[in-house]
Amino acid sequence: MERKGILIVVSGYSGVGKGTLMKALTARYDTYALSISATTREPREGEQDGREYFFRTKDEFEELIAKDRLIEYASYCGNYYGTPKDYVEEQLKQGRDVILEIEQQGALKVKAKMPDVLMLFVMPPDAETLVQRLRGRETESEDVIRERLTQAVEESKYVDRYDYMIVNEDLDRAVEELHHLIESQHNRISRNLDFAKQIQQELMDLT
Amino acid sequence: MERKGILIVVSGYSGVGKGTLMKALTARYDTYALSISATTREPREGEQDGREYFFRTKDEFEELIAKDRLIEYASYCGNYYGTPKDYVEEQLKQGRDVILEIEQQGALKVKAKMPDVLMLFVMPPDAETLVQRLRGRETESEDVIRERLTQAVEESKYVDRYDYMIVNEDLDRAVEELHHLIESQHNRISRNLDFAKQIQQELMDLT
Repeated sequence: MERKGILIVVSGYSGVGKGTLMKALTARYDTYALSISATTREPREGEQDGREYFFRTKDEFEELIAKDRLIEYASYCGNYYGTPKDYVEEQLKQGRDVILEIEQQGALKVKAKMPDVLMLFVMPPDAETLVQRLRGRETESEDVIRERLTQAVEESKYVDRYDYMIVNEDLDRAVEELHHLIESQHNRISRNLDFAKQIQQELMDLT
Repeated sequence: MERKGILIVVSGYSGVGKGTLMKALTARYDTYALSISATTREPREGEQDGREYFFRTKDEFEELIAKDRLIEYASYCGNYYGTPKDYVEEQLKQGRDVILEIEQQGALKVKAKMPDVLMLFVMPPDAETLVQRLRGRETESEDVIRERLTQAVEESKYVDRYDYMIVNEDLDRAVEELHHLIESQHNRISRNLDFAKQIQQELMDLT
C-alpha cells in the first residue's frame, strides 16, 4: 500500500503551545513536514529564505495569487502572508503528513477549499493555564494578554469546525496523542478505497 | 474531564481474524467491554449464560423486542439473535468503549439507529491470506470456503459505509493500531463539546 500524505491544519488559542508542540512532533517523527509560508515582509536578522519563510517581492507574491499557487493568503500590517501549494503538494506526494500551523481564519479558508484536510485544535487544560503561559512569556504586557484572551473568546466560537482536539497539558503526552491521532487517520476508509477495491477484485478472482 | 464510552461496531470478512483480534485487544486493555448477544438457541456444552450469550426463551426475547430493549436483532436458522441495550448502555456509562462484533447487516442496522457509532472493518492484507486462514481452520470444506468468499464479495460492496479499516497482517501490530485508533476517537471535537464550552466560559470570565 502506497502511503499518501495527509494535509493537517493546526490552530489553537495564543499561548497554548502550538509551536512547541509542532517542533517536538516533527523532531520525534520523520513522517511530518511543516509547511513554510510565503511573505512579502523583509527577512529579520537570522531568518533564511526557505526556512522561516519563503521571502518574495510584492510582484512575485501577486503572481502566486494570480496563478492560484497559494492554498490561502491574507494581508496583515501591509504585507502578504500565504501558504504556497507547491511545497505542500510535493511533500504530500512523498507521503509526508504536512502541517499548516495557521490562525483560525486561514484555517477555515483552507477547510472550505480542501474539505479533506484534517482540522486539529490545541486546547489548554483550562483557561488559567493559558493565562499563566502568556504571562510566563514576560514579553507581553497585561494589555496584550487581555487582547489575546478576547481573541481566544472569539476563536472559541468556531471550535466545532475542527475535527479533533488535543489537550496540551503534558507536552510529551500531547505529542504522542497527536501522533497516534494523525497516524490513525491513514486508516480512514475514505483514504483507502483503492486498497478496498483491490481486495474486492482479488476476492472476485477467487470465486 | 469525564470519559464517555464509545460504541464500536467491528465487522470483517469471515476468516480475517476479528475474534482473535478482539480477544487480544480486550485482554491487553481494560478500557473495553465486548458486547454479549442474547439468543433463543440452546446453550452448547460449556457455554454460560452471560458469558458467551444471554440465553433467553422465545417469549423473553420477544418481550425485549416489544420493549425496544435491543439495539438490533435478526432471526437465523429459526432462532433469534440480538444485542441487548441494557448491558451496552451500562458499560458506556462506566466509561468503557463497547465493541459489537457483528456481521454486516446487523452493523448497518446499528449505524442507521445510532449514527454516532464508530464503524470499523477488519481487512486481510490480501485475499490469498484470507483463503489460507479459512483453509487453516481445517473444519471447513472447500464448498464452505467458496461460500464464505462469495459472501465476502457481497460484503465488500458496503465497506465504504465504515469509518476506518484495520489491516490484520500482524496481530500485535493490529491490536496497537486498533487501540490507538479508538483512543484517538475520544479526541473528536463532537465528543468534547462540553469541555470546549467550559474553556470558553472560563475565557469569558477572564476577559
